[in-house]
Amino acid sequence: MPRLEKVKYKAVPVRDIFLEMKNLSELMIDLAYSAALFNDHELAQEILELESRVDTLDYLLEMTIMIAARDAHDAEALTSVSTAASAADKISDAAGDIAAIVTQNIGVHPLVSQVFEKTEERLMQAKVTADSSLVGKQVGELDLAAKMGIDIIAIHREKDWIINPEKAEHIRSGDILIARGVHSGIKEFKELAEQKPRRSID
Amino acid sequence: MPRLEKVKYKAVPVRDIFLEMKNLSELMIDLAYSAALFNDHELAQEILELESRVDTLDYLLEMTIMIAARDAHDAEALTSVSTAASAADKISDAAGDIAAIVTQNIGVHPLVSQVFEKTEERLMQAKVTADSSLVGKQVGELDLAAKMGIDIIAIHREKDWIINPEKAEHIRSGDILIARGVHSGIKEFKELAEQKPRRSID
Repeated sequence: MPRLEKVKYKAVPVRDIFLEMKNLSELMIDLAYSAALFNDHELAQEILELESRVDTLDYLLEMTIMIAARDAHDAEALTSVSTAASAADKISDAAGDIAAIVTQNIGVHPLVSQVFEKTEERLMQAKVTADSSLVGKQVGELDLAAKMGIDIIAIHREKDWIINPEKAEHIRSGDILIARGVHSGIKEFKELAEQKPRRSID
Repeated sequence: MPRLEKVKYKAVPVRDIFLEMKNLSELMIDLAYSAALFNDHELAQEILELESRVDTLDYLLEMTIMIAARDAHDAEALTSVSTAASAADKISDAAGDIAAIVTQNIGVHPLVSQVFEKTEERLMQAKVTADSSLVGKQVGELDLAAKMGIDIIAIHREKDWIINPEKAEHIRSGDILIARGVHSGIKEFKELAEQKPRRSID
């Protein structure tokens, strides 16, 4: 994702901006549950940065729509885009609110953890062992969506967070992976990531 | 789900209120995409009613927390519950905003549909044929989460919408099912629902 530091008008297709806003906002909710469950300050910080990115994208989208709308007909047609993008922004704000519980050390009440844990069935955090058959594999080559009904939504590598990793990204020993998907796939994938004796994914 | 028409304090465990808020808000986002994609006015109306229910639950939760907090320590401990519940409320508002595009006949711009269609891979709407092997089966007995990695999030039966159906609910011929989950499961389940020659799910 390109850097967008200042909110200055750039000609980016509205569709691309909106698609990124929608994808990021959904991802952020799952990442926020994960950050709260595992009390992960760095991930929470990452979510707050994503929130600010989604804010920027929303400004950019509004500017682009204004420029695109030449008459009442255009304005009518584009209203749904603006509304749907604002909805993505609200979802992103909600994720930021949850992340702030972690970064501000408010403390996650056991009751919140219990409720979020219900989501744990579809969220997993696992550290890749040196012996794991995942080491050296590309994210795309694992074909996790088809094989296990899951996808990797983030990789924590040393000091970096790779959010929504590309298919070409190689998994390394020591990576902390966050995946989401169906319960059975989550369990199987966690075993693969943390495996001790060498076993094949195929 | 019990009716909660007036926002009047009732002793309901905070955990139950928060769990329902979280589950409803997530469901509502998927239902809102579905309503926009299929231009489904009745479903959109249903989402707006759910939004108002989540608002009510949020008031109730805040009241319950106020009563529960006796001192600064309690207040500190309970702040995360209030924040997380407000986040669920924001997500529900976002779903309501998307639903309102449909109910207010603003018209869903093709660009919005295109972006939402990406989600279609994990959302499905299918009408159960008389010949479908699903007819007469209970939702729970199908064991869809384990078998196909999907779940039924709503049933449209004649004039009624059954949101988040119970395990004991029987599927009838003519039901319109909304399911979400992995792409492969969605495809397989749609075929089962719409099947012409009799085939078994087992």
